[in-house]
Amino acid sequence: MEKFSRNQRIAAITKILVESPNKIINLNNFTEIFNAAKSTISEDIVIIRDILNKLKLGNIETISGASGGIKYACDVSEDDKNKLARELCFILKEKDRIIPGNFIYMTDIMYNPVMVHKAAAVLSLSFNKLSIDYVVTVETKGIPLAYEVAKMLGVQLIIVRRDSRVTEGPTVSINYLSGSGKRIQNMSLSRRSMKRGSKCIFIDDFMKAGGTALGIIDLLKEFDSEVLGIGVLVDNVENKRKLVNNYISIIKFNGISDDGSAILIPSEN
Amino acid sequence: MEKFSRNQRIAAITKILVESPNKIINLNNFTEIFNAAKSTISEDIVIIRDILNKLKLGNIETISGASGGIKYACDVSEDDKNKLARELCFILKEKDRIIPGNFIYMTDIMYNPVMVHKAAAVLSLSFNKLSIDYVVTVETKGIPLAYEVAKMLGVQLIIVRRDSRVTEGPTVSINYLSGSGKRIQNMSLSRRSMKRGSKCIFIDDFMKAGGTALGIIDLLKEFDSEVLGIGVLVDNVENKRKLVNNYISIIKFNGISDDGSAILIPSEN
Repeated sequence: MEKFSRNQRIAAITKILVESPNKIINLNNFTEIFNAAKSTISEDIVIIRDILNKLKLGNIETISGASGGIKYACDVSEDDKNKLARELCFILKEKDRIIPGNFIYMTDIMYNPVMVHKAAAVLSLSFNKLSIDYVVTVETKGIPLAYEVAKMLGVQLIIVRRDSRVTEGPTVSINYLSGSGKRIQNMSLSRRSMKRGSKCIFIDDFMKAGGTALGIIDLLKEFDSEVLGIGVLVDNVENKRKLVNNYISIIKFNGISDDGSAILIPSEN
Repeated sequence: MEKFSRNQRIAAITKILVESPNKIINLNNFTEIFNAAKSTISEDIVIIRDILNKLKLGNIETISGASGGIKYACDVSEDDKNKLARELCFILKEKDRIIPGNFIYMTDIMYNPVMVHKAAAVLSLSFNKLSIDYVVTVETKGIPLAYEVAKMLGVQLIIVRRDSRVTEGPTVSINYLSGSGKRIQNMSLSRRSMKRGSKCIFIDDFMKAGGTALGIIDLLKEFDSEVLGIGVLVDNVENKRKLVNNYISIIKFNGISDDGSAILIPSEN
């Protein structure tokens, strides 16, 4: 059988780990692919772990026991976190992003895989230790971000819908009060989408007063499940009274300045 | 300044490449991070390229010229393609997935990052050479798959909405006829979301008669843009007369068998 060099094994193992964040991979997988002893693979992994740690690119955790192995988690340096927040502020301050009603057009950012990947890496760091079962979001703009966070945390994504669909089977629907507008809104989730007694985090693009987040907390109660954390890209701090606390954001939006651009600053979490 | 070993550089370069598919990365980025000569980095990349090719894990292309560099594209072996199609058929044949109206419940698959990543890798292979500008989908179930394909192709995702939203500015809306049900439906896209004259692919979870795909083609005409390819996870072949041709799928659905499970087979593309 073919033998591989250490360089070759390191490249291939890194690729496999990076594409399966937070999934436990048994070392036997690698001994089979590379026709190598477990001790050899362990040495490879020590080298990968050390350099990823040193450059703040990620961590590799060892899980002992019969169902053990290694698992990769992404990491982001303080420097890269700050760079991302400043970059987002810079882009979203562009004057032609202001939409009548003092909204900021940010759809292009929310659907840009490079930006979404960076933002998800930052948000997922805060939830890595929580051992959650699901990442929950509500359609539509936050879906790519929530998907990427779910992938990084190695869990299933759940998308709460504004309507209910015939293709999802029986659903649970609730009405909730939007935090700001005092409008009654509806959200629904397929009965079979979530196990009872689950731990979740809620990810969204934007938080105003937190009405949607509160609605999600109420909806998940119908599944005996709870929201352990909330993460958003942009926190609208014009709304001082929030309906939820304990959430994190990447940047803060504080209204429109006299010169007609958005007032945005990096969040300190 | 610190020096890094070849092993260390290979691990870090692989991680950086794999997380930025289809993005041209100038070698100067790596010479700076690792304080190494360009020739040394080039040798590292040859090693990474060879092993990724050998194991069918990916390709690294060299782009020459002033704005040149290297770019990574994922790859999937025939074996892994077949394995994914068979796995999907196996999972979706579970009898309790049949929903009144002869729908298959597949939301959990469409929101499972591991499955989505594998399916997107297979679909993106067919579109890698097209030099597209955008991946287009329509809300909601196909969004994670379309996002992952967009990420792998290194382009922006565009999500067409069923309604129009105040936070997206002026929109273009069209009505279209659903292929099967003869219902009139609406879809809309923000005017600023797409540059005129763009080349796109359309990605969705499921194709029945192709009414939605035809609607997308019509909607994009309003942006002087065209759909160069269509990819779906499941093709419903009960509908023999399709409104579009030239699309690819991963598996085919041919109705419900007498024993009450879905009839599913891998597609040959």
